[in-house]
Amino acid sequence: MSRPGALFLSEIRGQPEALARLLEHAADYEAVGAEIARRSPAAIRLVGHGSSDAAASFGVYAFGVLGGLTAMRDSISLTVYYKAALDVSKSVVIALSQSGQTQDVVEYVSRMKERGAYTVALTNDPRSSLAAAADATLPLLAGAERSVAASKTYMNQLASLALLAGGAAGKAEKAAEGLRRVCEQMAEMMDPLERRAGELAPAFTYVERMFVIGRGFELATAREVALKLTETCRVAAEPLTATDLAHGPVAAIEALFPVWAIASHDETLAAVLEAAARAKAAGATILASGSAAAKIPGAAFSLPVPRPPRPVFAPLLSVVAGQLFAAALAQAKRLDADRPEQLTKVTLAQ
Amino acid sequence: MSRPGALFLSEIRGQPEALARLLEHAADYEAVGAEIARRSPAAIRLVGHGSSDAAASFGVYAFGVLGGLTAMRDSISLTVYYKAALDVSKSVVIALSQSGQTQDVVEYVSRMKERGAYTVALTNDPRSSLAAAADATLPLLAGAERSVAASKTYMNQLASLALLAGGAAGKAEKAAEGLRRVCEQMAEMMDPLERRAGELAPAFTYVERMFVIGRGFELATAREVALKLTETCRVAAEPLTATDLAHGPVAAIEALFPVWAIASHDETLAAVLEAAARAKAAGATILASGSAAAKIPGAAFSLPVPRPPRPVFAPLLSVVAGQLFAAALAQAKRLDADRPEQLTKVTLAQ
Repeated sequence: MSRPGALFLSEIRGQPEALARLLEHAADYEAVGAEIARRSPAAIRLVGHGSSDAAASFGVYAFGVLGGLTAMRDSISLTVYYKAALDVSKSVVIALSQSGQTQDVVEYVSRMKERGAYTVALTNDPRSSLAAAADATLPLLAGAERSVAASKTYMNQLASLALLAGGAAGKAEKAAEGLRRVCEQMAEMMDPLERRAGELAPAFTYVERMFVIGRGFELATAREVALKLTETCRVAAEPLTATDLAHGPVAAIEALFPVWAIASHDETLAAVLEAAARAKAAGATILASGSAAAKIPGAAFSLPVPRPPRPVFAPLLSVVAGQLFAAALAQAKRLDADRPEQLTKVTLAQ
Repeated sequence: MSRPGALFLSEIRGQPEALARLLEHAADYEAVGAEIARRSPAAIRLVGHGSSDAAASFGVYAFGVLGGLTAMRDSISLTVYYKAALDVSKSVVIALSQSGQTQDVVEYVSRMKERGAYTVALTNDPRSSLAAAADATLPLLAGAERSVAASKTYMNQLASLALLAGGAAGKAEKAAEGLRRVCEQMAEMMDPLERRAGELAPAFTYVERMFVIGRGFELATAREVALKLTETCRVAAEPLTATDLAHGPVAAIEALFPVWAIASHDETLAAVLEAAARAKAAGATILASGSAAAKIPGAAFSLPVPRPPRPVFAPLLSVVAGQLFAAALAQAKRLDADRPEQLTKVTLAQ
């Protein structure tokens, strides 16, 4: 048995290497991206659970901004349970699953393929049921992930979606180039960011609930960071778009209620700053992250990351701050991030 | 000044009347539904914030199951902030806003209309900016809603989406008939359900966080009930699909952590029962609601509602249990559900 949380931490640290490994196979992604473009899909349907669903949020923006394509997080239950008679002949399906064994995702893909959709599996296991069910399989190449809480799989899911979207837009090389730079930035920031997360986290030992806000590209980060805090630190952390905070949840904020605000240099920055200011006015303690963390006024804590070559890549750097913070907080709370109670690595449940 | 929470409660009670008023105008919905079907849209894009976004979740299932049409909760920021060059010429937009003044929703509709989408506004105010921006406006007819926390607007949004989806499927009269029966069921259940909610709620006075789980049609209810608990009772309540609970958040459950499970008689019931059993095994206290509440094993608390004529209508009855519970809990906590701190009725924020 390793030290509690040691696997999670070493896998977080291993992300630049995992990402570099994926980038060696950028050509495979370019080819499938081109096939997606050739089909001029009416909709790209992204499905996955947990971290994979957070990555799907990123896919919506990556395909929209890079490729001008409509992508959506599709409802699995509409097809698998309700058997809705959707016309999916002009759809592309991208199914995300670390293990490739998630039962309802596999079933969803089988039905979609039967009905004429072009189906792509993104998984770490090219011999999985999901890979067998899909028209095309792209390996995530995250390497063995032994901690129950995912990190490098999520990272490579983001990169895969960026490569696919870049490929669909005929800009595969530009996307791969940008991601190579992100890989360097990630390696450089890792040690100082880990130290800083280790300094901040103990102050959150008794925190039971948080909001995590982001918008646009960073909605995925808000969802993934909230999930890490929930599963590894037992904090009831709820992800919200910067705007949704104002539509109700701001009323639950009380003095010292922590709000984690992810601010990056892109078109949504003003909306995030406004939401953070509103949370602070309501009495929240603000933890700022993202490349534009320094722009959030009055943040009590800050975990800034470098500014990537293009805004679309920001989530790959931003999420690392959340992962390292979750690892440090779990340690401060003497919880084992590698083996959270109640969880198993492969979730077969419907 | 009325008694704290009196407006919210009287508006909850007024929902059968508000729904009946809407049903008198079912023909208007039928006509727009037929226009939607005539266009054979590649995608129906639903947008709204807060309660309106919860209603949009219902729309995804209503259009999918009743009409076999692909509907999605669209990203506003993709269009309004990132100016993504999506082809929306074969899209229908349905924008949901109580006031019709929500700035980014209005801007989204204007851009979508410019780009060739057919745009429909669902709002209480047919003279609002949203109504002016859209191709067609359908009045929600919820009547003056004076409590900041929405109830009857949400109810009529659900009914409007069901009527539109029924209209698009050429089954408008059947949908209206079903809703008329739901209206009667709602009126009959109201008083006993209010009493029961009043009995249960005080036990939750010191609860700070909860999960609310539902799936399929009832995902909308999970989202709306969580939002009501958050904004009126200051409980950090997070909505989850029954399946997503197993992908991480179950690890945050500790003894007596309450989980609200919404179980209705439809194809997703087994998945909800399994998730509730898993939450209970992890130590959660279960509050069961929905028409199949009695099927949840070992629920400590229960707020059952009648079984509607068709599963698609279940959310209109289920949500009332959550509204009444929130009203009673706010009262037990001496919070004013009519005027939660930090909130205003019309949210103009981006």
